Amino acid sequence: MDIRTDLAVEAAGMKKAPVEGIESTVEEKGHIKIERIEIKSDEAARAIGKMKGTYVTITTRDLSENDKDEYEEMCMCVANELKSILNIEEKASVLAIGLGNNAITADSIGPESVKNLLVTRHIKELMPEEIDESVRSVSALAPSVMAFTGIETSEIVRGVTERVKPDLVIAIDALASRSMSRLGRTIQIADTGINPGSGVGNNRKELSEKTLGVRVIAIGVPMVVDAVTVALDAMDIAGATEDEKRVFFETYRRMEPLGADMVVTAKDVDSLAKRSSRIIANGINIALQSALGKEDIDRYTGF
Amino acid sequence: MDIRTDLAVEAAGMKKAPVEGIESTVEEKGHIKIERIEIKSDEAARAIGKMKGTYVTITTRDLSENDKDEYEEMCMCVANELKSILNIEEKASVLAIGLGNNAITADSIGPESVKNLLVTRHIKELMPEEIDESVRSVSALAPSVMAFTGIETSEIVRGVTERVKPDLVIAIDALASRSMSRLGRTIQIADTGINPGSGVGNNRKELSEKTLGVRVIAIGVPMVVDAVTVALDAMDIAGATEDEKRVFFETYRRMEPLGADMVVTAKDVDSLAKRSSRIIANGINIALQSALGKEDIDRYTGF
Amino acid sequence: MDIRTDLAVEAAGMKKAPVEGIESTVEEKGHIKIERIEIKSDEAARAIGKMKGTYVTITTRDLSENDKDEYEEMCMCVANELKSILNIEEKASVLAIGLGNNAITADSIGPESVKNLLVTRHIKELMPEEIDESVRSVSALAPSVMAFTGIETSEIVRGVTERVKPDLVIAIDALASRSMSRLGRTIQIADTGINPGSGVGNNRKELSEKTLGVRVIAIGVPMVVDAVTVALDAMDIAGATEDEKRVFFETYRRMEPLGADMVVTAKDVDSLAKRSSRIIANGINIALQSALGKEDIDRYTGF
Amino acid sequence: MDIRTDLAVEAAGMKKAPVEGIESTVEEKGHIKIERIEIKSDEAARAIGKMKGTYVTITTRDLSENDKDEYEEMCMCVANELKSILNIEEKASVLAIGLGNNAITADSIGPESVKNLLVTRHIKELMPEEIDESVRSVSALAPSVMAFTGIETSEIVRGVTERVKPDLVIAIDALASRSMSRLGRTIQIADTGINPGSGVGNNRKELSEKTLGVRVIAIGVPMVVDAVTVALDAMDIAGATEDEKRVFFETYRRMEPLGADMVVTAKDVDSLAKRSSRIIANGINIALQSALGKEDIDRYTGF
Repeated sequence: MDIRTDLAVEAAGMKKAPVEGIESTVEEKGHIKIERIEIKSDEAARAIGKMKGTYVTITTRDLSENDKDEYEEMCMCVANELKSILNIEEKASVLAIGLGNNAITADSIGPESVKNLLVTRHIKELMPEEIDESVRSVSALAPSVMAFTGIETSEIVRGVTERVKPDLVIAIDALASRSMSRLGRTIQIADTGINPGSGVGNNRKELSEKTLGVRVIAIGVPMVVDAVTVALDAMDIAGATEDEKRVFFETYRRMEPLGADMVVTAKDVDSLAKRSSRIIANGINIALQSALGKEDIDRYTGF
Repeated sequence: MDIRTDLAVEAAGMKKAPVEGIESTVEEKGHIKIERIEIKSDEAARAIGKMKGTYVTITTRDLSENDKDEYEEMCMCVANELKSILNIEEKASVLAIGLGNNAITADSIGPESVKNLLVTRHIKELMPEEIDESVRSVSALAPSVMAFTGIETSEIVRGVTERVKPDLVIAIDALASRSMSRLGRTIQIADTGINPGSGVGNNRKELSEKTLGVRVIAIGVPMVVDAVTVALDAMDIAGATEDEKRVFFETYRRMEPLGADMVVTAKDVDSLAKRSSRIIANGINIALQSALGKEDIDRYTGF
Repeated sequence: MDIRTDLAVEAAGMKKAPVEGIESTVEEKGHIKIERIEIKSDEAARAIGKMKGTYVTITTRDLSENDKDEYEEMCMCVANELKSILNIEEKASVLAIGLGNNAITADSIGPESVKNLLVTRHIKELMPEEIDESVRSVSALAPSVMAFTGIETSEIVRGVTERVKPDLVIAIDALASRSMSRLGRTIQIADTGINPGSGVGNNRKELSEKTLGVRVIAIGVPMVVDAVTVALDAMDIAGATEDEKRVFFETYRRMEPLGADMVVTAKDVDSLAKRSSRIIANGINIALQSALGKEDIDRYTGF
Repeated sequence: MDIRTDLAVEAAGMKKAPVEGIESTVEEKGHIKIERIEIKSDEAARAIGKMKGTYVTITTRDLSENDKDEYEEMCMCVANELKSILNIEEKASVLAIGLGNNAITADSIGPESVKNLLVTRHIKELMPEEIDESVRSVSALAPSVMAFTGIETSEIVRGVTERVKPDLVIAIDALASRSMSRLGRTIQIADTGINPGSGVGNNRKELSEKTLGVRVIAIGVPMVVDAVTVALDAMDIAGATEDEKRVFFETYRRMEPLGADMVVTAKDVDSLAKRSSRIIANGINIALQSALGKEDIDRYTGF
């Protein structure tokens, strides 16, 4: 049963037996769990339907709305994991792409995150004397979605990348997960690039080193779950057999266009989206600028 | 199986046999279906778990985002059905209450609707010479939700009603439905008052003639479905027996606190909420002011 | 020349000679200046057109958008000054009123502030076992404006106050200032109650111990300046005499209805409004709950 | 005195004598006044500081918030004037650019307008069978502002234009006017391209046939006035001489960096911005798609 998830850790976990060519480790830091998965072979990539590369999945086990300490821990954890995966020179420039549709809360992680980035490229280019030389050149773009622009998102990103010529692209998007408990609580960082639209909304083309000519780091947060997930979980509870579930699954998938407008999300999706976007923005800001640390959380995220 | 729905038409429809003391008729007008249900006895009310009274359910069969004609038909249909249920004198004053939480899209129907009402009470009281005598006195309040105010919503409404002394209250709220296909496509009007919070969010106390001292008309739009609905539909598709479904249902309900944060809604919930709010506001404006008609749709709904 | 300002410190400062019955002190704390004015006699109150009582004006001398330290200093300073003016018992309950129109940025300080308050009254009443006894009962209301409700704002506040029966009311509103440099940079706290609408928008009735039956603390932030101010400043620069300025002033005031739609505000009014609202909310939260301190800034202001 | 205005009609009107090489006509249609100015020579262009070309200025004389008829007249008038200036083949494709910063109301005309455009390019390219052949290919982009992207807006537009290869670009921006009475009431259409940032915000580079390789039509709405305007008007009222005004003006301009954060706008800037954006979007939709007319106003502007 091909249940949709954008998380490599879930895709790997759905297999009954461990897949050869996939290595994974788990680390726990206070409330936070960090799962690292490496998909090493093309066979392994095919087996679980994810691109070859490294995926880091950061999950808070408990996220009450007002827990400021946990918020700060998450920011720092994203910063640290991102740093370890970035692998760029001190002077390398970065272009951040916030994918998705700001008008749909569950698809707004990308645009909201880039709004809160510390953007420096224009100052370095136009007023270099105003800014410390050690500050990294960062630019940002929220290309919106094809339904609003009439243009493939990947085309917009390519057009701008060709002009800006960054050394690295970071693409941020909303994801789909297998599990309700991950909504707004998990952040996946991958060095594989991104296939935008694998989250919410229509398919858009790949953003990767192959298409953009520079490495693409992907950051995403699950904001929706596949409705079939809820149903299958229900059948599990009801003691359905694997065969019964398979019959249901196939029927459901055939009918799906009828329910294509359905989305299963969290009741507090609005605040989860805002919170996740700020965690990502802080994580990127701190990871990219060597002078920033924990005490700078929210210093550049505006109001 | 007690599947939650705020629609009387669904509650009645879930019974296997017709319930005595319930009368219903169906009318079709172009794309629009109007179901009228009258719950005439206390026994019937108990049987389907809805208050005694009249419920009108207006549903568009197809609602593409840009269909202006259908939008106008819905506005006029709401206006007409509301008029027939209002039963007030020409000079009677009305206070509209927009229940719910503006910060959660699926719960924003109430506050968004009252934003677009033609409010006249202050002009009639302070500058009566500025306004035609035939204009009805209309006031409006969006009392927010207890999580933001710390006050039972019914307490706020009672405090304001005591001061404003309207002849009628119209309460607008988001509802829960049994069926995805009704989200943003159905509007229920009832002369029974409302139990706010039966939609999305926490329980709040009844708003009715009993508690406010004036008749309360309720208008609502389903914006979420109970997650268990999706699961039961899935089991149906999979050919589960009634017994299997019941076992599942009971297990699910026992576990529910774990999934209490889950909501099943439409992908385009943001635009459905805006559209429904404008239809309701236009319907109320036209129903309350005898000088307004179809050509006044959106004339008072601002920008 | 009667130039409109809602700041007592400006009203007093516009007099050529010190007014008897007014005492004032100035304190500087780092970037922050605290001016305390006490209007002690009815004559002094009439002379400068402000109610008898105590006014504390907190001003940051420099407010760059991302200065987190200064943001925290302002939050703590508002908390401390508010504490010293509150003068309530440990168990006294508080109702906060956010005056103004959320849809107009320059008038949104009130509603935005109450959104970020730590509201506790419902928990203390409905689930007292869930919350420490020492937590103060706080409720909040954003009554919107008469143009939207058709109801005098003071009527709504009275209706709710009668039901909630708080021991103290805190009313938050946007103000008008004499000086551009104060926009979003000054916070005035007064123990005099408030005359809502003296800020932006229409006149509304007084909120004070006289009208509500409980003490009313007022908190406000200047978000607009009177346009005539800009003109008079210009004439000063141009070396105009007092007489010339007076002639202009009188002519201008006569013409004003023509320019009544004009507002002079800051280019970054959107971010100033958000920032000021958060400072006020944090200040109130910390002042009202004895267990909170600097490390709790933004812990309860949501996302 | 070089008072800033983005309106050619104002720039020409500020000259004491008619400038040679400028032709102008005025037409009145009900409540609407249409001024057409043609700047024919380079000398004339230099004299009034505007690019050579045609400027059409559409102004409603009175604009009450809820006047639906006038709203529709303005939509049709923009459509008609735009059609007469477009001068493109039936099959020519168009890329619309919404300049400005969505987070500042007075600078949001561009992004808000493109949100409401009927975008068709993706359907024509990916699902040509779904759409009538006569529908024109339209795409849209809101490139945000350099402070958020770190990239010159003109660079983003060039990058995307090179990929999309439209036959014509329409650029929409907020403007500065000399007169309060024009805010939100005037729309300027020009065939000269645009110098973005001449409205609100920072300077950005020219968008014109020279820089993009295709013709650029500019549409703008005044949303702010230069503060010096208010002061000079005040001095006029006060009977100041031209010399006195000049002295003031020079002093003011020297001091201006101090007041650079000041903006003079309309009290109802929020609703004026929304209304103007919808008028522009409807005007463009109807001008570009030959099958659309008055009855299609708001049919494609969403909710």
